[in-house]
Amino acid sequence: MTSLTPPAAILRDLIRCPSVTPEEGGALTYLQTRLDALGFRTVRKTFSAPGTPDVENLYARLGEAAPNLCFAGHTDVVPVGDETAWSHGPFGGDVSDGIMFGRGAVDMKGGIACFLAAVEAHLAAGKPIAGSISLLITGDEEGPAINGTKAILDWLVQQGEGIEACIVGEPTNANHLGDTIKIGRRGSVSGTITVEGVQGHAAYPHLADNPVRGMTMLIDGLLWEPFDEGTDAFQPTNLEVTSVDVGNPSFNVIAARATATFNVRFNDTWTADTIKQEIEQRLARAAREERLRKPEKGGRRPPVSYSIAYTERPSHVFLTRDDALIAALSSSVEAVTGQAPALTTGGGTSDARFIKDVCPVVEFGLVGQTMHQVDEHVPLADLDQLTAVYERFLEDYLGRAT
Amino acid sequence: MTSLTPPAAILRDLIRCPSVTPEEGGALTYLQTRLDALGFRTVRKTFSAPGTPDVENLYARLGEAAPNLCFAGHTDVVPVGDETAWSHGPFGGDVSDGIMFGRGAVDMKGGIACFLAAVEAHLAAGKPIAGSISLLITGDEEGPAINGTKAILDWLVQQGEGIEACIVGEPTNANHLGDTIKIGRRGSVSGTITVEGVQGHAAYPHLADNPVRGMTMLIDGLLWEPFDEGTDAFQPTNLEVTSVDVGNPSFNVIAARATATFNVRFNDTWTADTIKQEIEQRLARAAREERLRKPEKGGRRPPVSYSIAYTERPSHVFLTRDDALIAALSSSVEAVTGQAPALTTGGGTSDARFIKDVCPVVEFGLVGQTMHQVDEHVPLADLDQLTAVYERFLEDYLGRAT
Ligand SMILES: [Zn+2]
Ligand SMILES: [Zn+2]
Repeated sequence: MTSLTPPAAILRDLIRCPSVTPEEGGALTYLQTRLDALGFRTVRKTFSAPGTPDVENLYARLGEAAPNLCFAGHTDVVPVGDETAWSHGPFGGDVSDGIMFGRGAVDMKGGIACFLAAVEAHLAAGKPIAGSISLLITGDEEGPAINGTKAILDWLVQQGEGIEACIVGEPTNANHLGDTIKIGRRGSVSGTITVEGVQGHAAYPHLADNPVRGMTMLIDGLLWEPFDEGTDAFQPTNLEVTSVDVGNPSFNVIAARATATFNVRFNDTWTADTIKQEIEQRLARAAREERLRKPEKGGRRPPVSYSIAYTERPSHVFLTRDDALIAALSSSVEAVTGQAPALTTGGGTSDARFIKDVCPVVEFGLVGQTMHQVDEHVPLADLDQLTAVYERFLEDYLGRAT
Repeated sequence: MTSLTPPAAILRDLIRCPSVTPEEGGALTYLQTRLDALGFRTVRKTFSAPGTPDVENLYARLGEAAPNLCFAGHTDVVPVGDETAWSHGPFGGDVSDGIMFGRGAVDMKGGIACFLAAVEAHLAAGKPIAGSISLLITGDEEGPAINGTKAILDWLVQQGEGIEACIVGEPTNANHLGDTIKIGRRGSVSGTITVEGVQGHAAYPHLADNPVRGMTMLIDGLLWEPFDEGTDAFQPTNLEVTSVDVGNPSFNVIAARATATFNVRFNDTWTADTIKQEIEQRLARAAREERLRKPEKGGRRPPVSYSIAYTERPSHVFLTRDDALIAALSSSVEAVTGQAPALTTGGGTSDARFIKDVCPVVEFGLVGQTMHQVDEHVPLADLDQLTAVYERFLEDYLGRAT
């Protein structure tokens, strides 16, 4: 048996904590113990909210001076899915041919392991910290994200805790370690559209009003025209109708109601409010279209009768404007991997959407390809490279700050 | 307590038999006993088929000569729904203000009661029967319709039983007794369309293929252009998309599959085969439309990937061509009600779709407005009028035939 490098050994320990969201699974305790040993001041906070599971969080800080550079991450992982389909146990951390397998290997126990290994190396080498290093680790990134990063950030701000810059260790790279840094995110708004028709018998359609006709028009109106062409920093805004449902089991019956759910990822052309207005205008225009409505004797069809309900919290679009932070991370990535990373804003949301309200935030971690999948895995070489990137970034950012 | 006229008394007896499909509920035994007493030769046949409930049927014939005029009907009824919402018990046959309440009052224990009362009056008056009178009563019209009229007709044909003309006692009238005779039916074809997409994350739509886009295009292609303008005897062909379903509970996920069900009622412009061809051509054309497809780098979108599956048995369109039969019924209706009935082919299917393969078939019964509803009911005056129509029709048709 070959011995593991520090980040791989930490990662295997973390994978062996079965911290499927919202379970802590021993993962936070493991990190707290190691950080305590390094001299970090650590605190565990559990938050509760109606209708959501209680969630544990960990905050740890070394040093009191500003700037406080915070690493943010999550130890919770998504369920393993079909466990029999895994070639290695999802909570084993087995290594085969230089690859470690396990749930959370890249999303994102791996990122945490690399940062902790980088801090340990930094301190072991006796390098200076001109400021503070902190870690904000939640157990609620894959869950409702209510009792996690947002809650502990609110609490920290209330305590007067200063955080000047943040790096999130989510798996940002598309294909190779070093290809992508994230410096912002599109906003996200979701909602449900309900079309009310009139139930009836399929043989007597003039006595009914089939909501599928109206819903088809509304979806067409939402989808057919692009929202924008994208901006310098952002991809084009995109709307997906994620479900359409009538649930009518009978071929002879016209149903009373159809629903559709949608999600729009919008760029800095829009705010959450203006994109909602645009969606509502498209729906209102489509509702007056007569294309699919059957003409009635003595009059035109009234507009489609519909309503729209948004899910509670939109994610707001943001772009990180701290050039020095971005440059420190970018140059560290290029120095270690030999490639200049793309600075992007694509992909799904992360807890950066909460952090951006407190301080500038950048994101860099492992390669995301196997995240949330069966046989999630990470090459050991990637762990060593990411650790080296984080070490260089610590030197660069906390050196620069003096 | 006022005494009931014969058709009302028979109807109350029938309503009190709880013959919710597929239960016989005593209704067929009641009819058989009365028909036996009138000298009919009666036979009960139970049919079975895999995956369907066993169903009892009754065939009764008086006389051996041709023509054999057959009355077809069903004693099974649809469930009562919310029984607490009924103002009178659904199996009571209560009379209030000249109206009898109960499940099956118009669909179609009422029609059977009127025909039986008409036969009894005809025989009691010593009127001749130049031919035969028969009744074919099933317990499977509201169910799968596999072990009912179709099965017993097949059996009768095998036995060499001759049936020269048929009247179905379904509630044909729209508003007033006498307004509508049915002399044919549109055909009906139902099916399910499945669009196969590629599952993915809503934030990475380029890695997924949202089946809702393709399904919306297919539905639009099916619906927007009329199939025809109708014919002399038939309404325009009409297609309803009766359900659309994705069943995706997550706003962040693009689903892999969408299904839609449809039902088309087609007139004599089409056959079941040609209307299927037209549907398939519309779908194939819509699948190549690019309106809602997102353009891909380096090429256009491939066509929508979809499949279509029809439900097993289409109903074929038919038009009754026996002018003498139609005239006898029509003149009887006009003589009793004072109005010339419309000869129509609209509305839903009935067992006439099976009978039309054996002999000419016409349909006339009560007013359908409350069928299948809570508080299904029939005015006693309608029962007396319909009985008078049937009496006159028996005289007319079986007199004419000598
Ligand atoms: Zn993650
Ligand atoms: Zn019926």
